[in-house]
Amino acid sequence: MAALIWQQHASGVWRGTIGEPSVLSPVSWMNREPKYEALHQLGDMPLPFSMEELRLDYVGAMPILSFPLTEQEAIYGMGLQFARMNQRGRTRFLRVNSDPKQDTGETHAPVPFFVSDRGYGVLIDTSRVPTVYCGSTVHIDDNGPEAARDRNTDKAWRATPLSSRMEVRLPEEGATVYLFSGPTVVDVVKRYNLFCGGGTLPPRWGLGFWHRVPKLYSDKMTLAEAREFRERAIPCDVIGLEPGWHSRSYPVTYEWSEERFPDPSEFVSSMEQLGFRINLWEHPYISPDASIFEAMKPLSGSHTVWGGLAPDYTLKAAQELYMNQHIEQHASIGVSGYKLDECDGSELTNHSWMFPAHATFPSGADGEQMRQMYGLLFQKMTSDLYRKHNRRTYGLVRASNAAASTLPYVLYSDLYDHKQFIRALSNASFSGILWTPEVRKADNSEEWVRRMQSVCFSPMAMLNAWGDGTKPWSFPEVEPIIRHYIELRMRLLPYFYTAFARYRFEGLPPFRAMPLAFETADQYRKAASKTGFDHGEVLNTTDAAYGKQRIKEWDDQFLIGDDLLVAPMFSGEQGRDVLLPPGGWYGFETGIRYEGDQVVHVQAPLELIPIFVREGAVIPMMPVRQHAPNGTERTPLEWLHFGNVPGRGMLFDDDGESFDYERGKHIWQYAEVTVDEQGDLLFEMKEQAGAADAVSSYSSVTWRLGLKSIN
Amino acid sequence: MAALIWQQHASGVWRGTIGEPSVLSPVSWMNREPKYEALHQLGDMPLPFSMEELRLDYVGAMPILSFPLTEQEAIYGMGLQFARMNQRGRTRFLRVNSDPKQDTGETHAPVPFFVSDRGYGVLIDTSRVPTVYCGSTVHIDDNGPEAARDRNTDKAWRATPLSSRMEVRLPEEGATVYLFSGPTVVDVVKRYNLFCGGGTLPPRWGLGFWHRVPKLYSDKMTLAEAREFRERAIPCDVIGLEPGWHSRSYPVTYEWSEERFPDPSEFVSSMEQLGFRINLWEHPYISPDASIFEAMKPLSGSHTVWGGLAPDYTLKAAQELYMNQHIEQHASIGVSGYKLDECDGSELTNHSWMFPAHATFPSGADGEQMRQMYGLLFQKMTSDLYRKHNRRTYGLVRASNAAASTLPYVLYSDLYDHKQFIRALSNASFSGILWTPEVRKADNSEEWVRRMQSVCFSPMAMLNAWGDGTKPWSFPEVEPIIRHYIELRMRLLPYFYTAFARYRFEGLPPFRAMPLAFETADQYRKAASKTGFDHGEVLNTTDAAYGKQRIKEWDDQFLIGDDLLVAPMFSGEQGRDVLLPPGGWYGFETGIRYEGDQVVHVQAPLELIPIFVREGAVIPMMPVRQHAPNGTERTPLEWLHFGNVPGRGMLFDDDGESFDYERGKHIWQYAEVTVDEQGDLLFEMKEQAGAADAVSSYSSVTWRLGLKSIN
Repeated sequence: MAALIWQQHASGVWRGTIGEPSVLSPVSWMNREPKYEALHQLGDMPLPFSMEELRLDYVGAMPILSFPLTEQEAIYGMGLQFARMNQRGRTRFLRVNSDPKQDTGETHAPVPFFVSDRGYGVLIDTSRVPTVYCGSTVHIDDNGPEAARDRNTDKAWRATPLSSRMEVRLPEEGATVYLFSGPTVVDVVKRYNLFCGGGTLPPRWGLGFWHRVPKLYSDKMTLAEAREFRERAIPCDVIGLEPGWHSRSYPVTYEWSEERFPDPSEFVSSMEQLGFRINLWEHPYISPDASIFEAMKPLSGSHTVWGGLAPDYTLKAAQELYMNQHIEQHASIGVSGYKLDECDGSELTNHSWMFPAHATFPSGADGEQMRQMYGLLFQKMTSDLYRKHNRRTYGLVRASNAAASTLPYVLYSDLYDHKQFIRALSNASFSGILWTPEVRKADNSEEWVRRMQSVCFSPMAMLNAWGDGTKPWSFPEVEPIIRHYIELRMRLLPYFYTAFARYRFEGLPPFRAMPLAFETADQYRKAASKTGFDHGEVLNTTDAAYGKQRIKEWDDQFLIGDDLLVAPMFSGEQGRDVLLPPGGWYGFETGIRYEGDQVVHVQAPLELIPIFVREGAVIPMMPVRQHAPNGTERTPLEWLHFGNVPGRGMLFDDDGESFDYERGKHIWQYAEVTVDEQGDLLFEMKEQAGAADAVSSYSSVTWRLGLKSIN
Repeated sequence: MAALIWQQHASGVWRGTIGEPSVLSPVSWMNREPKYEALHQLGDMPLPFSMEELRLDYVGAMPILSFPLTEQEAIYGMGLQFARMNQRGRTRFLRVNSDPKQDTGETHAPVPFFVSDRGYGVLIDTSRVPTVYCGSTVHIDDNGPEAARDRNTDKAWRATPLSSRMEVRLPEEGATVYLFSGPTVVDVVKRYNLFCGGGTLPPRWGLGFWHRVPKLYSDKMTLAEAREFRERAIPCDVIGLEPGWHSRSYPVTYEWSEERFPDPSEFVSSMEQLGFRINLWEHPYISPDASIFEAMKPLSGSHTVWGGLAPDYTLKAAQELYMNQHIEQHASIGVSGYKLDECDGSELTNHSWMFPAHATFPSGADGEQMRQMYGLLFQKMTSDLYRKHNRRTYGLVRASNAAASTLPYVLYSDLYDHKQFIRALSNASFSGILWTPEVRKADNSEEWVRRMQSVCFSPMAMLNAWGDGTKPWSFPEVEPIIRHYIELRMRLLPYFYTAFARYRFEGLPPFRAMPLAFETADQYRKAASKTGFDHGEVLNTTDAAYGKQRIKEWDDQFLIGDDLLVAPMFSGEQGRDVLLPPGGWYGFETGIRYEGDQVVHVQAPLELIPIFVREGAVIPMMPVRQHAPNGTERTPLEWLHFGNVPGRGMLFDDDGESFDYERGKHIWQYAEVTVDEQGDLLFEMKEQAGAADAVSSYSSVTWRLGLKSIN
């Protein structure tokens, strides 16, 4: 049995290898240079335990890696988890699954990376399915756990007893494991993202509003809808086309339907003139009617999907076929990117459509590996395709895995529970992935507003009308509220864009779950436990024969950047509890001041989604626009300062569209507000960092100080 | 790579071996002598395809076995499936799972045995988890399937295209596979059951009414409740005790609580005097407070469950410890049997409590094997324990696997959907297992009646009040209806018991899904498709982005024996469609005659569950009793003949409690009704088969001929 050999890889990053790891894995496939310098700046912090406390055991040929667990320890991450934030006590089976209805760990992006709030993280770099037992198992020699309890009489009995070990079942005899130190939870996450090459920086237009038209829309119908956006003054940057743009779909051709889009180039440029980018839906399975079908056939897997080929995109030749076709027919005429659907097929969904785990591929990979890797393969191919032409893309994808931080893609799902959608947004921040709580439809105008409000404060503000034909004005009685929040998102675009730039350079997630909003795990635990934590078990023979743990997790609110805290409202609710980190906070639209480090209750009529701005924050904003400024357009910039205390704001600026910023053509601006001896607030632009010849999007700079709200 | 070697094993049964199969498997563990003579009588029928049409491929070391599929072919079985009857088009992951909320194949009893309606069956004899792709995969060289369709325009597009192969991923390099021929679906199932040693014959009392008292009931509370049954004249044979009878539970001691049951022996005999048997709840995990804990510890697995031991019951020494304790403290004082809970733990449930798949056990088995086998191990130990004392037992179990036909256990679940419960009852009939749609509680008296009516026509008529404290009289306004149906079950006890005897000797399931009620698959398909079949897809972006197949399966009705067809009603419904097999049928309680081989619609007020009796049937019944006749009691027998056509009835008779029937001490009686030249009906008892000295339960025999209903 092979031993586990550790080697330091970068500041606070260690690589462990066991035997001969498989060649195909997320980290090796992505092959991104870690941001060594930024890692170095985080310091060479130690792990919170010694390497001797890790253990590698074998059951047959299966390696089982285990870690110590302390009593209060929380475990976050493991990708796009919909059911809970703290995974402690759960077993996570990290298989890609397109229909993650149960709390098993399976999901669209089952990233095998977890973060302990003791201040360390673990990445299992594998193209197969690991199982992570987050203290859900108790070894017979475990001295840590609570004693057996008598459920007959002891109310403290729990279905999952405490365990003092965390076990990971590695899926292959050879394995690569990475460890990341903290000291804080946010440091661990930053290190992970920097190790993966840094976060993604979307093009500026990607952060505007998105709309996807119904699946069989033609060029004329799409143009008409685009014009209606402009007539109604509902900002929108991107229109997405759904299956009907293909000449055949399910399986697809990647070729324009001559019937619905007779002149794609003319269509795309007409849209461009109206200020819209085009995003194209596709999936991986190639129709016999596609022109690349015959060439792709020998490069494809043993099983078809909907009668289409499942190409082996670990092969250079297959990549080239795909990329050349896409460049020629889409990118070269101005298409801005893709929605990569159905690359998350799994064996166990409500409909069986995916190739099986035992499918074989010409490269030697099998179906399990290809399914785990498919989302990554497509994201990398398509983003490389745009990078070649020095253009940034931003799109959607339904599957991902580890090492995805650099990829300009946002995850989505066919699920549609609003609370789960917000939880997924929070949870994504631990794992180097992004998520949109896309809006498709609503039962009534209240639900419509609540969903539209929250999607405007997410990595992709999108209405996806492919199946339902909804529009932002579908509920006329609340259209002004919808417009207000889409406009607010546009005004905040400089702030959002800067948050992403920090993701890019510092690895700091632009959207952050609450455990990432506190300086220490103890601080978070103390504040969070002031209300709502309840370990009591309630018996219910229908839904919960083992009792139900009613633990309030603060997974229904999140930070954007350092200074905005968003607490979405859900249909049917009149108000809600909000956990505020230490310091003073203002209602962004109400101007009410709250003292932080506590839980507050806010009422929120339909017109309002609770947003809080940190006291002292200096937020860069711009006027409402119908779409993001493009490379040549310039727009005024306004700095908004909140409260009566000193503070500092940041702004990242570049052309917003190319990769020139990587070659130094970008500027960091720092605004500083101080208080003088008379108590007056003073505004000052501090030193700038970056290139003098960087393209700027801003024409003029103004500021407002001492605000209580934006209104 | 090892080849697949076939060998004929019995009439219509072939064994295939690949390499070196693992020693631990359901068939080898159960080690039951097949009923060779009965198999022989079914004839040496061929398979519907040649062995050359089977294929064994390897992906890495994984053997993939595949079978041909015809276009119309339906695939049934695979154990206790809750979501559908025909598994065609689905991937079935056959892992034991205590919380089978999704349609993945995982369930309490994932029997790796499937039946094709072409007339053959396949059993994978393994202690691991196989995956069966029931035409859910399409190989790139597959010439059979439909062409790729354009979902943009073609309404016939389906999420799962037709496939011409069925693939089975075997979970180990070595494997044993059995093939069973038909020619009919029911013949395949009979062969499987006979191969497994024949079906189980419960003690007569097991077929009476069961009631489980709340979990912390004491001896006095239980006795008081038992007396109330007698006072209210609600028949009841068995009272089940839940966790509180143990001195400690979760984990358990198997020892009586001195507080709640100070004199167990006295308690059990008091109950016996009132005509009640006692059934004890238990689970596999042994408390540190149990007297057998220390001795069992070295015989247990590497991981604890709720702080209790998970013993390795593949070890003789562990079995003996368990059995001796159980004989001494339970069986020897008259306890009748067990409810074996939580032997179905899995990694991926709503609460994580089971030992992991990588747990190790002293015998060398690992956690995956132990979890797949645990239900079988407990059923075998406990039934062997009673067999040693020449007493039959009947009980409940939450996990099972293949080769379980002989085991006197009925499956149950914490799920509680009434339609799923009836579907499970139907589906169980394909796989040599039994299921109870147990009643726990109801939202209103309508639901209460509908659940109680259907449980009275199931393998175990049980009210399980462990968590809810319900009683048959909990809804006083409908108590007369409840009493009526419990009484009707008691009157039908001779008929039920005979149906089980045919299970025992012929392998014919006592409860049968509709595909087992027709002579040929074509006949069934033709009748069933007369209404309700609809392959259309309805798009719903929230619940069914791939469309929803709305195919009506006749999985909500079933046969009992040859002659009764039960079509349960569900709360909120006023009437229902019923598929009647060919021939004439009478409403058992309404007397209305229906022509079969068609779908009829019946209205059913709350007072009525639709039951149909076959024209010409001769049904043995007895008067209402408060409990089944025991070994020394005798009761009158009445034969009821329906309609004006000739017919034949059967009755199995023995002492109802011991295994003496296996040594010949039993009688088969045959009643024959003929029509003479004048058109008069004549009743005759035909030849009897069996021993002259067999104990009979019946005192007198009468008959009623030409009935339209029992009323």
